Amino acid sequence: MLHQAPSGLVVSTGDPAGIGPELIARLWEMRGAEALPPFACVGSATLLQAAAASVGIDLPVARIETMAQAGDMFADALPVIDLGDVPYRPGQPDAQGARLALDSLTRASAMAVSGEAGGILTAPIAKAELAKVGFTHPGQTEFVAEACGAPADDAVMMLAGPSLRVVPITVHVALSRVPALLSARLIHRRTAIAARALQRDFGIAAPRIAVAGLNPHAGENGRMGSEDAAIIAPAVEQLRADGFDVRGPLPADTMFHAAARETYDFAVCMYHDQALIPLKALDFDKGVNVTLGLPVIRTSPDHGTAFDIAGTGRAHAGPMLAALRMAGECAARRHRIAA
Amino acid sequence: MLHQAPSGLVVSTGDPAGIGPELIARLWEMRGAEALPPFACVGSATLLQAAAASVGIDLPVARIETMAQAGDMFADALPVIDLGDVPYRPGQPDAQGARLALDSLTRASAMAVSGEAGGILTAPIAKAELAKVGFTHPGQTEFVAEACGAPADDAVMMLAGPSLRVVPITVHVALSRVPALLSARLIHRRTAIAARALQRDFGIAAPRIAVAGLNPHAGENGRMGSEDAAIIAPAVEQLRADGFDVRGPLPADTMFHAAARETYDFAVCMYHDQALIPLKALDFDKGVNVTLGLPVIRTSPDHGTAFDIAGTGRAHAGPMLAALRMAGECAARRHRIAA
Repeated sequence: MLHQAPSGLVVSTGDPAGIGPELIARLWEMRGAEALPPFACVGSATLLQAAAASVGIDLPVARIETMAQAGDMFADALPVIDLGDVPYRPGQPDAQGARLALDSLTRASAMAVSGEAGGILTAPIAKAELAKVGFTHPGQTEFVAEACGAPADDAVMMLAGPSLRVVPITVHVALSRVPALLSARLIHRRTAIAARALQRDFGIAAPRIAVAGLNPHAGENGRMGSEDAAIIAPAVEQLRADGFDVRGPLPADTMFHAAARETYDFAVCMYHDQALIPLKALDFDKGVNVTLGLPVIRTSPDHGTAFDIAGTGRAHAGPMLAALRMAGECAARRHRIAA
Repeated sequence: MLHQAPSGLVVSTGDPAGIGPELIARLWEMRGAEALPPFACVGSATLLQAAAASVGIDLPVARIETMAQAGDMFADALPVIDLGDVPYRPGQPDAQGARLALDSLTRASAMAVSGEAGGILTAPIAKAELAKVGFTHPGQTEFVAEACGAPADDAVMMLAGPSLRVVPITVHVALSRVPALLSARLIHRRTAIAARALQRDFGIAAPRIAVAGLNPHAGENGRMGSEDAAIIAPAVEQLRADGFDVRGPLPADTMFHAAARETYDFAVCMYHDQALIPLKALDFDKGVNVTLGLPVIRTSPDHGTAFDIAGTGRAHAGPMLAALRMAGECAARRHRIAA
């Protein structure tokens, strides 16, 4: 049976006052040296050229209507789904830029959902800016989930670096709310989604999973908190009953040294800093945010808009490059399997 | 004015069924190659010899009554304040061993408090075992504080490795209790104690201090929790008003990569795993637990009794060695300054 594979990845422009546009230009410039998969950007062609110029890149763009046109153009110009002229004002976010960011995210998501694009790389937005033009989601992850028609709960965030992959069960909530938000059902569901995504999109046949405890020393037999035994242990048991290779709850502080990391493919963490502290301590500037469990592949760099350095050329392209590469690898794996 | 410096460090034996005794023997064996400061052990001379034999060391011991005798003996034998014969049963903790551990800790603490010893290195105990023979303290830190006649609050734990020094404000408590336990007063007090100890005992004239936030992104202007702005920020302001070089509350996840660590001498963390995850991810098996703020110098290795490998020769001496070295350096600095 013939399979029509998508013609490339789509990149949303992010907040145009941030470092997204200049990094997209730099990715395109690296396409040959880094053997990058073809991609198109949804955004403002003139703004992308201005952002490129600010970091010394003379960027040729090719305005396209559909992804099918991107592959042929990619070697010679950045394919752009052009949303119209927007002035480039690095470091000065405004409503016009926020609308461009939201329109870009909306269109790019739709292209991934329809199968026109093989996956989506989202450049950073500033949630506070987007909220001013009607963005009501906690973040891009939930936006993409909704675009897929999937429950927000199905979208599981994984941060992946060269040393470590982590899946936080709770993310952007006050620490005091974490214990009450945890449930065996939630831990089981998110871990299972992550494990299946590692099988499907990362080619890991039987992912080894390490689940962190919530409390110091994973509660030390109930001496420091009850959640490890009452909530996390039952989730781990259920996952094991489901056939997953899983251990926990483990004392979080001894999970992240080199020898410990050798024993698992991803770590499940109970809250933001438990996951992000080790990831960024070990793999700062190399982490990719991957959304697992959705019908579409979506990655993003693990950094923000960095308004303070936009247009100065000081932004590192490493995280965007890693995110693009990961989206490309996952897309190739998924579409090969689907073919 | 003549100053009678203490004649060496005192080492408590720890739980004799654990790896403490064999590691004490190995430290003594390394005394020449590692140019170690003289030390004496408070424990059972025959048990120390049996533990040494289990890891292939023929350990000469010199029974002494006071630290003044230790210096002359140290080159040729391990000076021991002998508490009597106790059988060596590695991996099998019992009441007799727990009593030895408690008696050793009591005597060693008294020797440090009196000034007879320049500092104390405590080998690991098992709190559950010691509790059976009447040990009511949360840990050795609080025991040593009480022996000094100091409030337990004055004893501030610092974990120090080659890459990082961290001071947790709360330690062995359930995560759900952390927010309520934090106060500007507590953060200010513990940070100030730690900063002064770094000046006095570590020779850092103006310690640079980084204070972590409690919530993701240090609360992001109150969007995720109020404690960062309401509790931590005022403590930082007060510390700055006191003349300390301090920043915070900082997003904890971006505090521990290499470039960030260059900007401070110690990190103040709000809870156990926030401090211990980065320390052990970066410096596993190299961390020293130092008690700051007491009239005596006290260090310990950042590991437990390891009953499962006691007597097998598999225990690493690295953490005990680092702890002994740090105690010796702090003692030299403090007594030189006091002289």
